[in-house]
Amino acid sequence: MSTEQLRALESELSEQYLAIKQQGLNLDLTRGKPGNEQLDLSNALLGDISEAARRDASLRNYGGLLGIPAARELFAPVLGTTVDETLVGGSSSLTLMYFAAHFAMHIGVDGPGSAWNTEGKIKFLAPVPGYDRHFSVCETLGIELIPVALLDDGPDMDEVERLLKADPLIKGIWCVPRFSNPTGHVYSEAVVKRFAGLGKIAGKNFRIFWDNAYALHAIDDNAPTLANLMDACRAEGTEDSVYLFGSTSKITFAGAGISFAGMSKRNLSNFSGNLGMTQIGPDKINQLRHVEFLKDLDTLNALMQKHAALLKPRFDAVLKGLESGLAGTGMGEWTQPRGGYFISFNTRPGLAAEVVSMAADAGVKLTPAGATYPYGKDPEDRNIRIAPSVPTVADITAATEVFVTCVKLATVRQQLAG
Amino acid sequence: MSTEQLRALESELSEQYLAIKQQGLNLDLTRGKPGNEQLDLSNALLGDISEAARRDASLRNYGGLLGIPAARELFAPVLGTTVDETLVGGSSSLTLMYFAAHFAMHIGVDGPGSAWNTEGKIKFLAPVPGYDRHFSVCETLGIELIPVALLDDGPDMDEVERLLKADPLIKGIWCVPRFSNPTGHVYSEAVVKRFAGLGKIAGKNFRIFWDNAYALHAIDDNAPTLANLMDACRAEGTEDSVYLFGSTSKITFAGAGISFAGMSKRNLSNFSGNLGMTQIGPDKINQLRHVEFLKDLDTLNALMQKHAALLKPRFDAVLKGLESGLAGTGMGEWTQPRGGYFISFNTRPGLAAEVVSMAADAGVKLTPAGATYPYGKDPEDRNIRIAPSVPTVADITAATEVFVTCVKLATVRQQLAG
Repeated sequence: MSTEQLRALESELSEQYLAIKQQGLNLDLTRGKPGNEQLDLSNALLGDISEAARRDASLRNYGGLLGIPAARELFAPVLGTTVDETLVGGSSSLTLMYFAAHFAMHIGVDGPGSAWNTEGKIKFLAPVPGYDRHFSVCETLGIELIPVALLDDGPDMDEVERLLKADPLIKGIWCVPRFSNPTGHVYSEAVVKRFAGLGKIAGKNFRIFWDNAYALHAIDDNAPTLANLMDACRAEGTEDSVYLFGSTSKITFAGAGISFAGMSKRNLSNFSGNLGMTQIGPDKINQLRHVEFLKDLDTLNALMQKHAALLKPRFDAVLKGLESGLAGTGMGEWTQPRGGYFISFNTRPGLAAEVVSMAADAGVKLTPAGATYPYGKDPEDRNIRIAPSVPTVADITAATEVFVTCVKLATVRQQLAG
Repeated sequence: MSTEQLRALESELSEQYLAIKQQGLNLDLTRGKPGNEQLDLSNALLGDISEAARRDASLRNYGGLLGIPAARELFAPVLGTTVDETLVGGSSSLTLMYFAAHFAMHIGVDGPGSAWNTEGKIKFLAPVPGYDRHFSVCETLGIELIPVALLDDGPDMDEVERLLKADPLIKGIWCVPRFSNPTGHVYSEAVVKRFAGLGKIAGKNFRIFWDNAYALHAIDDNAPTLANLMDACRAEGTEDSVYLFGSTSKITFAGAGISFAGMSKRNLSNFSGNLGMTQIGPDKINQLRHVEFLKDLDTLNALMQKHAALLKPRFDAVLKGLESGLAGTGMGEWTQPRGGYFISFNTRPGLAAEVVSMAADAGVKLTPAGATYPYGKDPEDRNIRIAPSVPTVADITAATEVFVTCVKLATVRQQLAG
């Protein structure tokens, strides 16, 4: 485009943007949380549980650090671990991950004397773009984060292996292996296999933090499945190199669900020994509620299909808006997730913060630019996470139109300035 | 008594002990947990909460790190803090205490750079006898425990003040100020006042860990009340020197209750900033259940009277057995709690472990000797914690008889050996 054409386009887009601003919109595409219709699917959890609780009076009392047997049985296959490799906890899997990192850092990952912080300045690999709350666990604990590119089939494993071989102080890596936050990518079988080998090349007491938060969260019948990491580790003899996590936060209630963790029996013994210093046991009544409601994998999967039916049109509304507004313009690229809670959008370099700010001024809240990178700093200032689960399809359509206008206007202005 | 008389007594008691052993009893006075009849008092928590939950759809979703407003309002007066000084959390107050100690130790008690472990080898004062799970938090985090005697009106404050003045690396003290675990003592108003002054003489970033676990747990109408520590601190300008804790573990369900913490607004801002790295928020639905069930302080106190009615005869059964078996013998001394969950018994020096072992052999389980001291080591081997809440009155009577026989036999044998 000539400078004149760009100027004309800038002027046209500026008018559109002003017109949008005057509408006084108030739309929110920030956090990945279930919408109210999704929450309604689990309202049976609010019902009377007296009869089931009567079967075991001790559910109301202290104890049972590993969770109730029926819950461990139900969620072990979700993680792909055996029942005796599975712990079911309280309402937050982030808490289990935080404890796992803190115990490993300060107390001991494998018994007395094995705390990471006795070895020096500890580091973690952070596939990017990734999940800000994973990164902030490390930031809080003083663990340095080293970004690694997340490719379509998982992290750049050549780079991961190279880094681990070179630096034994890299003690972990954060993963959201199925429907990655925010790209929606699913790690391929080959990548999972390479993960199973990492325990052999990393420094001692290395742990993969495998947050399978979206294990069952396809929005598409033909969504790719995820290979079983624990089985792959068993084949390599590296079972101790992995901690797996999950929760019902996006299955039942995001604030009042239950969490679970899977790990080798050796790891579970160490982890639960430390966990037992922080609590006597989890809320077993809420676990009972979940078991009574979710029953078995078939019931669980049927519920997930209802979630998918609510989420799919919302994702489609974003994708349709991006497609019709930006396809072929070279002004941005985005993922087309088959599950999870997010679409990842890349602007041209240097524009993400500007687009998020412009959208905010026009009444559309987006996750802060940079949030998907360690320390909140996207080196290229490109990545924006779009979370369409909460608003209505009409609002998402409107918000995407605003977003597209902002991307176009910011891009044209950048070109004029450059 | 002459040696001959002692020998005759030993022989008589040995026969009694053998007879008891042959009964094959299986009684348990170990853990301080509610009995099933007590748990039944809160079975309404198992009921349908749909209607109340309908008032606020967001209760089922992420967020609300400080807890729901109605729960903060209900429990603030239990701690004696204002609502904006009160946080309501998940099912375990031990977790809140663990986090408070861990954040202070490793992350920062008052913002960046204020972690205790940057100062050297950190220590805590441990009034003894005390609660093993408090001590194990410090043991896990590598904080040295210094025992201080617990007197009838609270810790030996002359000693506490002397130690704090002498060593700025003493950063905390564990307290169960009302119906102390295990003695049942209530800190006097004068002691509470002196606690409020500790922030002025201790090293920087000192924190009192005030676990008011039995705040409402009188078993006797005329039980002593506890002075308000936060108010006393306000008078001294030392509000930042105290963390207060409590829970409904012995009000509703021990495994599925809710926890709360009180602290100055400055402390709460720091603490919740760190807590927010470990979770998005607590289970707000369970908080709602509790607010709907417990309603207000009057309803709460009425429930506590029902607990008292179940606990009082159990305490009386122990006290009656000890009185009739041991009063005036000089073979032991014990507390007469007006609330809480425990009776504390002291044998003659060097006999606690032996008595616990003999009782176990005769089918009566007691908390391991030493558990009420840091590192599980009672220097005089005297203290035994008796927890009578769970068994029936008949079983408690039988167990106390066994206990008395064990105390007598162990004492007589010690005298013969000495």
